[in-house]
This record gives sequence, C-alpha cells and structure tokens, in this order.
Amino acid sequence: MPGARRAAGLHRPHPSSPEEPPAQEDLLLAAAYVSDAQYNRNVPFETSPQAVRLYHFYNHWTMRAATYFFIWGDLALALFEEPALFPLPFLATSIAEVLCLTAFSGRLVHFAKVTPQMVFWKDTKNICIVVTIVLTLIDLIIYGSLEAVNIHGVRWSRALRPVFLINFPESRQIRRAFRSIRNTLPDILYVFLLFIFSMLIFSLMALKLFGDRGLKTVEGSPYFTNILDIAFELYVLVTTANSPDVMMPAYEFNWWYSLYFITYIIINTYIFMSVFLAVVYNNYRKHLKNEIRTLAYLKRHKMIEAFNILKVKVGTEFVVKEAQWRQLAKIVAPDISSSHLELLLRISDEGQKGYVDKMNFLRLADLLNIQVVTINIKRHPLEAWMPRVYQSSPSLLVQKVVRHRIFVWVYDVIILINAIFIALDEKNPLISYAEWLFLSLYIIEILLKLYTYEPRAYFGRKQFWNWFDTLIIIAALVATVANTTIQSARKYNSQQILDIVLILRILRLLRIIVSIQRFRVIVTTLINIGPTMLTFGGLVLVVYYVFAIIGMEVFHGKVHFFDPSSTSPDALVCGNPALKDSAFARGRYCRNNFNDLAASLILLTELTVVNQWHVLADGFALVTHQASKLYFIGFHVVVVILIVNIFIAFILEAFFVAYSLEKSEVETAIEKKIQELGVGVQEEEVQDGKLIDNVDAKDSGFSGDDGDNKRKALKGLYFRIASKSPMCPSLSSQSTRPWMLCCSRCLSLK
Amino acid sequence: MPGARRAAGLHRPHPSSPEEPPAQEDLLLAAAYVSDAQYNRNVPFETSPQAVRLYHFYNHWTMRAATYFFIWGDLALALFEEPALFPLPFLATSIAEVLCLTAFSGRLVHFAKVTPQMVFWKDTKNICIVVTIVLTLIDLIIYGSLEAVNIHGVRWSRALRPVFLINFPESRQIRRAFRSIRNTLPDILYVFLLFIFSMLIFSLMALKLFGDRGLKTVEGSPYFTNILDIAFELYVLVTTANSPDVMMPAYEFNWWYSLYFITYIIINTYIFMSVFLAVVYNNYRKHLKNEIRTLAYLKRHKMIEAFNILKVKVGTEFVVKEAQWRQLAKIVAPDISSSHLELLLRISDEGQKGYVDKMNFLRLADLLNIQVVTINIKRHPLEAWMPRVYQSSPSLLVQKVVRHRIFVWVYDVIILINAIFIALDEKNPLISYAEWLFLSLYIIEILLKLYTYEPRAYFGRKQFWNWFDTLIIIAALVATVANTTIQSARKYNSQQILDIVLILRILRLLRIIVSIQRFRVIVTTLINIGPTMLTFGGLVLVVYYVFAIIGMEVFHGKVHFFDPSSTSPDALVCGNPALKDSAFARGRYCRNNFNDLAASLILLTELTVVNQWHVLADGFALVTHQASKLYFIGFHVVVVILIVNIFIAFILEAFFVAYSLEKSEVETAIEKKIQELGVGVQEEEVQDGKLIDNVDAKDSGFSGDDGDNKRKALKGLYFRIASKSPMCPSLSSQSTRPWMLCCSRCLSLK
Repeated sequence: MPGARRAAGLHRPHPSSPEEPPAQEDLLLAAAYVSDAQYNRNVPFETSPQAVRLYHFYNHWTMRAATYFFIWGDLALALFEEPALFPLPFLATSIAEVLCLTAFSGRLVHFAKVTPQMVFWKDTKNICIVVTIVLTLIDLIIYGSLEAVNIHGVRWSRALRPVFLINFPESRQIRRAFRSIRNTLPDILYVFLLFIFSMLIFSLMALKLFGDRGLKTVEGSPYFTNILDIAFELYVLVTTANSPDVMMPAYEFNWWYSLYFITYIIINTYIFMSVFLAVVYNNYRKHLKNEIRTLAYLKRHKMIEAFNILKVKVGTEFVVKEAQWRQLAKIVAPDISSSHLELLLRISDEGQKGYVDKMNFLRLADLLNIQVVTINIKRHPLEAWMPRVYQSSPSLLVQKVVRHRIFVWVYDVIILINAIFIALDEKNPLISYAEWLFLSLYIIEILLKLYTYEPRAYFGRKQFWNWFDTLIIIAALVATVANTTIQSARKYNSQQILDIVLILRILRLLRIIVSIQRFRVIVTTLINIGPTMLTFGGLVLVVYYVFAIIGMEVFHGKVHFFDPSSTSPDALVCGNPALKDSAFARGRYCRNNFNDLAASLILLTELTVVNQWHVLADGFALVTHQASKLYFIGFHVVVVILIVNIFIAFILEAFFVAYSLEKSEVETAIEKKIQELGVGVQEEEVQDGKLIDNVDAKDSGFSGDDGDNKRKALKGLYFRIASKSPMCPSLSSQSTRPWMLCCSRCLSLK
Repeated sequence: MPGARRAAGLHRPHPSSPEEPPAQEDLLLAAAYVSDAQYNRNVPFETSPQAVRLYHFYNHWTMRAATYFFIWGDLALALFEEPALFPLPFLATSIAEVLCLTAFSGRLVHFAKVTPQMVFWKDTKNICIVVTIVLTLIDLIIYGSLEAVNIHGVRWSRALRPVFLINFPESRQIRRAFRSIRNTLPDILYVFLLFIFSMLIFSLMALKLFGDRGLKTVEGSPYFTNILDIAFELYVLVTTANSPDVMMPAYEFNWWYSLYFITYIIINTYIFMSVFLAVVYNNYRKHLKNEIRTLAYLKRHKMIEAFNILKVKVGTEFVVKEAQWRQLAKIVAPDISSSHLELLLRISDEGQKGYVDKMNFLRLADLLNIQVVTINIKRHPLEAWMPRVYQSSPSLLVQKVVRHRIFVWVYDVIILINAIFIALDEKNPLISYAEWLFLSLYIIEILLKLYTYEPRAYFGRKQFWNWFDTLIIIAALVATVANTTIQSARKYNSQQILDIVLILRILRLLRIIVSIQRFRVIVTTLINIGPTMLTFGGLVLVVYYVFAIIGMEVFHGKVHFFDPSSTSPDALVCGNPALKDSAFARGRYCRNNFNDLAASLILLTELTVVNQWHVLADGFALVTHQASKLYFIGFHVVVVILIVNIFIAFILEAFFVAYSLEKSEVETAIEKKIQELGVGVQEEEVQDGKLIDNVDAKDSGFSGDDGDNKRKALKGLYFRIASKSPMCPSLSSQSTRPWMLCCSRCLSLK
C-alpha cells in the first residue's frame, strides 16, 4: 500500500505541539482513516481536504444508490430486449444501455480521481469494468449495424452485464463469495476428476453388463447401449433424478443387478457428494479465517496511522485528547447520539483522565461498529398528556392485564381458532364475518399494547415481531377493505387483492412462533443470517443471469407454451414435433422454456432443485442438439455442486457460531461498562415486552440516587448490545457489524 | 464403577516388596486392566485368576465369532420365513430361532459370571436382551399355537431382532451411533416441529390460493383441493421428488404463482434441510468430544490401577521393572514381535535405566495400539537362493527397468489402451484375443515386480494397491479360464461368470488412480474411513431390517411382479386393479415390492435415494390405505433426515481431520524414537514402491557402523507408523486404533 503510506505522512515530523489542537486538516485525515478502518475499506487517497471531500462524496449514499440504480437498470434491460417479457424496440434498449455505460464510466472516473493512478490500474476490478464497457459498446455497434441490414446477430455482451454488479466496490460481499469459490476450485477439481473417472468406469461396466441384453426402458427405447448415453444417465443418477427408473429394466431382468446401482449410488451419490461438501466447506472456513485475519491486520494498521496523526504527549505516553477524540467520533459517525458518545468515551477513557491512550484509541472503530441500542426511557405519551386518566385504576388494570402472561395465551388461542376458520370454507357468510371479528381482535391487541407500552420502545429497531404483527394487520385491513369496496361496487372479487388478503391472513398465524421460546431461538438465528443470505441471492442472481442470457440465445423459441384450454394438436408437443412422445411433452413442461427472462429464471430454479432436470435437458436436447445437454450439466456443476454447497457451508457455520455463543472482547467491555453504569437492560426483558416494568422500577431507583454524577448524565437512558449472536460477517451484505468483533470467534474455529 | 474399584484392591497395602517380583496373580490382574484400557472396555470383573481367565475366555475371538454368527443367523432367518426368498417350514425357522436365543442366553450368562451382579442388572443393554428373548419366545409360542389351528398371526417379534445386534457388547460402535442419534433427537425435534409448522402454513396458503381455481394435475385429477393431500405434496416437495410437476398447473395458470413454490423451496428445502444437517452435525461433534473425553479419563484411571499393582520403589519414585513390563506386554499383546517390543521399551525407558516410570507406563496402552509396521528387511529370496543369477547384469537391468518411473508410465498407457479395447465390441475375435494379451501383460507386470521387490514387503499389510492389483488379476485369470473352458466344452457362455469377468476386467482400470498423486490422497482418505463406513452399514442395516419386517407384514403380496415378457393384462397393474392408471404402474415399478426380504431392502434403498419415493408411497397407499403413507414419511424422517445427515457429518469430520493433519503426541514420540534409531522409512518411499532401493542404501550404511549397539539390535528392521491420517475413531468399527491417539486432535476441534 505505497499510496496509503505516502498519504499518511507517516514519517514527517508531527506539526502539532502537545498543547496545540491538531489542525482541521489532520483531523479530517484521521477521520478518513478511522472511517476507512471502520468499514474496512482499503481505498487509498490523497492528503488534501479537497481529496478527502471528493472521497467522501464518492462514498455518499446518493452516489452509491445511483450506481446501484444503473447496475440494476442495466441488468433489467434483459426484460425488454428480444426475447422480451415486455418488448421494446432495439433503439430504446440500446440508448438505455449506453446511458448505463456512461454512468459506469463516470463512477469509474470519479474513483480514479480519489485513487493513485498506479493503484487504480493495478486493480483487476477496474480493468474488468473498462474492458466490459468497451466490449459492450463494440457489441452494440456490431449488432446495431447488422440489424440495420436485417441480419440477426447475437447480443453476446449481455452475458457480461453481471460484471458490473460484481466489480463495483459496493458489491464487496458478492465478490468475496466469488473469491471463495475461486479458491475452492483447485481442490474441487481433483475430486471432480476422480468422480468423473469413477463414473466412466461404472459406465463401461454398465455397457458391458447390460448393453447386449436387449433390455428396453419403460418408454421402449434400448437400454444402456451407448456409452455416452450411459454416462449421462449415470450423471443424472448422481443427482438421484432418475432413480429408480434407470435401474428398473436391469432389476426386472435379474435382481442381483440392483447391487450394481446400489454400489454406484453409495460411492458416487453419497460419498462423492459428501466429499464435495467437505471440500467446499473446508475451503470456505479456511478462506474466511484468512480474510478476517487480513482485515483485522489492515484495520489495526489504519488505526495506528490515525493515532500517529492525532497523538500528543502527556507525561511519558502519547495519547489523544478527549476533545479531539470527541471531534473525531462526531466526524466519523455524525449520527451518533451524544449519550452513546458519552458511553463510548467512558469506556475508552476508563480513568476519566481527559485523554484516551493508544490501546483504547485503536478500539475506536470497533466501538463505533457495535450497535448499542440507546433505549430512551420516557414516560408513555398518554401519561404525560393526561396523567390522571392514565394512572386511574381502570387504566392501570388494563395495563396489568395486557402485561400478564394470560393475555398472550388468550391471543394464542385466538390465532389457533383463526387457523381453523381459515382452513374451513370461506364461502360460508358466517365465516367471512368471523374474519372481520378476528381482524378487529388483532387490531384491539395492537392498540392495547400501544396503550400499555411506550410506542417508541414497542417499535424499537430490533422489535422484529412487533413490526411484523403491525404491518401484517394493517396490510390485511387495507386489503380486506379494498376488496370489500371493489366487491360491493362491482360485485366482483379482484383476484390479486384476494390472493394478497389470503396470504396476509395466513401469515398472521406465524405469530404463534413468538410464544414458543425454542422456536424463537431458531427463527432469530435465521433472521440474523437473513442479510447474508441476500448476498447469496446476489451470487445466485449473477450466475442465473449469465446462464439465462445464454439459454435465451440458444433455446429461445424452440418450445412454446399453449394455453391449457387450447385444443391445438401442437399443444401436446409444445409446438415442436421433435418433442413427440418425449417425457418433456408428457409431463406438460411446455411452460418451462427460455422464451423470456422470467421463464428462464424459473426454469433455472427448477434445475437447481435438480429433480426432473434430465427431462428438461432431454427435451431441449431433442429440439436442438444432444450437445446442449452440456449446458444443463454445466449448470448443475456450477450451481448445485458449488454454490448450493457453499450455501450449506454458510448455514452450517452460522449455526455453529450461534450454538457456541460467546461475546467478543470488545462487546464484553462495552457491556461491562453499561452494567457498571447501571443503565443495562437484559435482552430477555426487552423481548418479553416487559421493558417498561423494569424501567419504571429502575427509574425510581435513580431518582433517589442523584448524588451520583455518572448516572445522572445518562439518566433516562438504557443501553444494550444489539444482538447476542453476531454472525461472523463472512459474506454478510452491507453489514455494519465489525469484522474484528467476530475475529476472535472465527479464528478460534479450527 | 464400584465393582472395578473393589476389584482393583486400590487401598489394600501392596504385597510385593521392592525387590521381589510381583506375583503371577498380580501380573494377570494388571494385564487384564491394561488390555481393558487398551480396548477401552469398561467391564468390571472379579479379582481371582480364574475370573480373569473366564473374562479372557469371554473376550476370546471364538466366542465373539460365535456370537456374531448367531446374531447374523437370527437376522438371516427373515430370508426363510414367510414371505420368504427361500421358503422353509415354520418348524425349521422356529427351531433355528430358539437355537439362536439359547446362544444369546448362554452368552449373557457368561457375561453375568464375569460381572458383579449389581452392575449387570444396572446395564440397560442386558435388560434389553433379556426382555427381547422373553418377548420373542412368547411371540413364537403364540404364533405357533395360532398356526396349529390355522389362524395366521403376525410375527411382530421379528422386528426386535436387531436388538441383539445393537446390545451385545461387541457392537459398541453401532450402539455409539445410536446414542449419537438419541442425543440429537431433542434438538432435531424442535427444528422439525418448526418445519412442520411452516409446511402447514404453506399448505393452508396453497389451499386458499389454488383450491378454488379448478386446476387439474397432469393426470387430470383435481389440484390442491384437500389440505391433507397438499401437506403430503408439500412434504414431498421438500424432498424435491415431485419438483417441478407439483408446480406446473399453478405455473401454467399464472406465472406469478411460481414464486409461491420458489419461496417454499428456499425456506423448507434449502434452509430447513441445511439446519437439520447443522443440528445433527453439531450434536455429532459435541457428543464425539464428550465420549472421547470420558474414554480418555477411564483409560487413564485403569492404567493407574494397573501401575499401582505392579509398582516397586526405586530411589524416591515408584516404577515398574523392565522384566515385569516385558512380561506384561507379552501377556497383553501376545502377537507382538520382539523387535517391536524392543522399540516400545526404548521409548518407555528413555534412559535405559532398567525400569519404566509412571508417566511412561501410563502410555503403554496407547503405545500398544499404534500400529507400527515392522518392515523386516530381508534379501530377496531369489538372491539368497541363487545369488549369482540374481545379481547378474541382465537381472540387475530388469530390476532397474522395473523400478524406473517409465515402467509405471508404460503400464498406464497399456491400461488406457485396454480401456479403449473394452469399450469396443468384444464380439470381434481380434479384440477377444487382445484380452488375453492384456491379461498376460498384467501378469508379467506382477511377476516382474515380485522379481524385483521382496515379496513380503510387496504384500505388506498396508500395500492396499498391490493386493488389489494381484487379486483382481488372479480373479480375472481364473474367471476367464473358467469361462473359456465352459465355452469350449459346451459352446455356451455362463452368464454369471461372464459378468464377473467383465467387472474384473474393468476394475483393473482403477489402477490408473495410483499413478496420480492427488487422486491417491483422496482415495487413501476414503479407504481409511472405510471401516467406519461399515459401522454405518450396521446402523443402516438395523433400521432397514426393522422397516423391512414391518413393510413385509403390511404390504406383503399387495403388488406382484410379472415377468417382462408376460402378456397378462394384470402385469400392467402389478396384479392389483387398484393400481390402474397410477404412476406406480405406469413407471413399471411392480418389482418394487415387499414380497421378500431382498426386494424390501432394495425398495428401502430406493426410498433412501428419495427420488420417486412419493410414487412408491402413493402406489402402496392405493393398494392398502392412505394412512400407510405414514410408513414412508417415517422412513424418510428416520433415514434421510437423521441417518444420512449423520453420515454426511461423519464424512465432513473425517475430511476435516485429514486436512488438518497433525500427529498425536504418542505417535510423535514413537516416530521420533524410530528416527533416532535410524530405522525409519518414509511413507512416500514405501508407497512409491522404492522401498528396496532405499533399504539397500541404508543397509550398507549399517554394515559400516557396527559399533553402535542400539542399531545392531534392530538391524535389518525398519519401522514406520502405519498411517499418517488416523481417523478419529468416532464410530470406527472394531478399530484397534486407540481413542487416546485421536483425543488431542478431536478435542482441539471446536
């Protein structure tokens, strides 16, 4: 990192004397380092405040949002291009594409401005983007000119579009996932070759054992006579998709032959597929560990640079003054509440000496990254507004009832009754009235809870289930009212709205999970890894997109879907006579085609699920060429063997971490301080909705203890660490959770 | 272990004075402790030498073999009982069963003799066996009496037979696997309930979304109208067996509905199934760690007891004299070679002081368990027999050629050419002659190698591939000759022999794996975990057997298989009109039935592979009752969700251990000593078949260094640790590998 080092001015004598505050420029520079360390960005930059401002502007959310907008717009173009879901003329889509490319170029130029030239051109990401932009322009020009003389070309550059999604620095997480895959490849390759070898040996055996028997498959075609067909069938058997059909003719002939297939399945399906998972998982862990180690090193390095800029000498040691520390924290994290800042300062300046020593300064980025929920304990607004009514005995009784466990149980029973009503036929008017009853019961529940609990606490950032409840109920209310209005006005149920009402009504039943502790733990873990799963969504999307574009070019229009009511004889063969008597046509798979982006993506999902993929592959091989099976095999190798296994590895790792919960050092330090200051709230209390009870009690304790300055400063405020189970950030998308936080945990994994 | 403690006489003053050798009785007792510690058996016993002898007799291999014989005989009875593969009258099978039960009772009584009564009756295993014997007898009597008056009863006790396989102390490994499953159950249960809940919510949604649409499946039956059917279909979708068929009607109706199915698959198939694996894997690891910890503790405890029996005071410390140590080792491991014993003594008695201290004594069981391969370097027998010929220059040239790398390459090429010939049609006489050529080439290769390398080294215990080569070639030779003889004598190819010849011929191609280093590593790991996989075989067998017996009782005779050439109209519906138009009959699945044990086991294997299991379940539900689907769902939950996941967990763990190879402490100590004494051989050298080269060189080194006594004692002998990747013994069957050996490694796993 020569650029960064130069920028840091690490070796120039420091201008500020111990007493004199550091210049604004220094502070900005340090802030840039810290904010860089906080997000682990490794972008070197120039020293001037202007460059820093340019750099901040580059990272501003509007710029990032705009980049995402253009990336997604570029990808979405496939919806409008031939074969299109919503056709648009070539001119329109090509103008849109050029617009996107311009935006990407602009972004890249901006990035080049804040990066030393040498570093910029050393980065493969930037070169990738430049090359892709150029290639896309060339393709556009060629395709346009060909189109002009009515020759239909191939828009091959469309398959390159995901390059933008991967290579802009915003998509660090997807890139990390790809890097993880790339690192796994060499190891996977040897296992894969061995697996292929074993498959070929078995193919040869099958040819010799069954080839001359004159056996017939269920469809009446010859059984196991061609080595290539056998290899394909056996590959399919590894995916289990043609079991037990592929075995039946041999098994019928002689039951001993089933042993051949059982041996094959044990070796290739069970053992080899597990070995693939083992290799992928092992590499995933190893890679994760290395990345975290590197990032932890980089972060520490940057924090030391920032410290060297701000340090002043007090006594024998170099420290950062409290004023500078505050100023810095405010610059780096402008949104931080002053009480939160106060808490962090207490932690960093343990002895209240008015300065922060080096060890504590280095923790700043980590401290800022831990989401401390500031629970602002205020009176219920109603209490402030009309204290007499709110504190009257009927009101207090209501609050007591709502807080009681039985209240929860009663609503659990209501949900169960609701479930039974939903399962019954809703055409009965009584049941349709009951629906209104349930809806009002749920609304009453929410209102009662809002009456009892402080609304801002109830809708806290981490109160997932309260949000879930309220949104579902409001949406159901709106949709039901809308549907009733339409129905009474036009005597006609709107299909879409009715569907939504139905789904919302059933989703309400999910609330029962909250009542069962063991379920809540599992669901919480799943919700916690949700963001990271979205990263996998990005990864899968990239692969799907490339395969979809290729598939559309190759298979577009080969298979047609006819309306189920159609009586055309073509409907039975999906409009292609080559499919006559095929399993594809028999299974009524005509809708599984590559005729637009949506259909392609759904088809690829079906291929990912694996079952019947050979029927689809066979179908498309029949309408084009046998070699097109390679497309489907390639998809299987990439998505099922690589990506699905990485996904499983990720879930395994996430659950292991969740099972072996220990707090990280930094988290523990913060929590200790929170407890020391007497402003802690147990997570359980918050989750059980007993927050206010607890707070009331503590609050009164506070009032009688006003001699304590520390407490006074934080009076009315409660903190807790946001989550007890921080996932290792592994591939977590846009996570603000710190890498360091998980470091100790991840590194302790073997 | 009150019995053990009493037996140890831990607190009685020791009779032997420092100089006097311990009494024979004491030595026997100590030996019993050590051999107990060595195999980690936790069987308490009486102190008298007679009791020790009885105990040794109980553990004698003949008794164990007899027990296994009766266990397997008892299980195999299902082959001969109605519905039988080889029918025998009820009288014959019942007599055989009573015989087996008698043998089990005898074994149990023997065990009771060597165990304190209280301990015996506290052990659930023994009670299980007693109860099962009694129940089986009751069942036999009831069934026999009913049969006598021509009422056909149910032989329900047959499903209990695997109890014997599990509960005799010999099957420790299978029991451990079951314990592992039992410990996993509570955790799995909650995830399973949540999963069922999620499935029901989705079922309800499906009913509401698709129930009233009047959609039809491909078969023309109504689509998603009954909540139970929907729940079953969605359960099947989790196993992916009916994807994408189950989605097609809704997808054809409106492509938005595919999102419902994709959401379902992501949540239930991908996430929940991964969570199941995570839970199973996590418990597996946790459980493994605890067991190893307990076993390590027990072993140490027993070794201390043995030390206390044998100890004599030398100077200030208690030690065991070399003579006693030797005697003990000889009693415990009678098969050990004296040079191996010498090596162990050198390791235990580092300073050659004539006694072994406590620390080193405690390692004895571990030392004995490490398989040190004693490589006895002798001259080639031919060299001894006719040295002039063997050392003549043509002979040396031959040896040089055989040892050259090119020799291996040439044979690799030959194998490849052979593969091509096999793939070609063998009816061509030229190719059939070529087969003879290849066979003789392979035989020449083996003969040349035997000429060059010392035969006993070539067929060393760990020379898997040499054994493999030779056995395959000899078998192929025998089979080919037999086939040719039959053919020329009767002008007719014996089908079975021909099949065997074909398979052997193709298996020869596997040799090419040995030539590629990366492949060899993977295969070695797989071979190493082979024995443990056999344990899984036992586990699977137990579960399969129980399900097969139940299946035979319930579904026996409901479906019939007709010969493929049969023209009977019944053949199309498997002899049961209820199957008319079912997918079962259409798929020609008639052979998949429960009409005998073999067919049942094959059918259960197909269910394990999962694909099309719903077709099988539907078929058997049609011929019996819808509720019989529960049998198939139960099988899926037990085998696929539990056992297959444990199998995957085991493979993952085995590969992780193989990837993170470190030698255990004890192994390192032995290896250090081996190297110190200059008698080590690198594993690579042995594997590459360069053993003799290397040995020759070292041997000559020895001759010039006869001043060194130590070396002389071991001259001509080379040692190496048997395997560099000892698997954690986890569930490894009958492994003589020590638990302790893996302890440090396993425990270091998180």
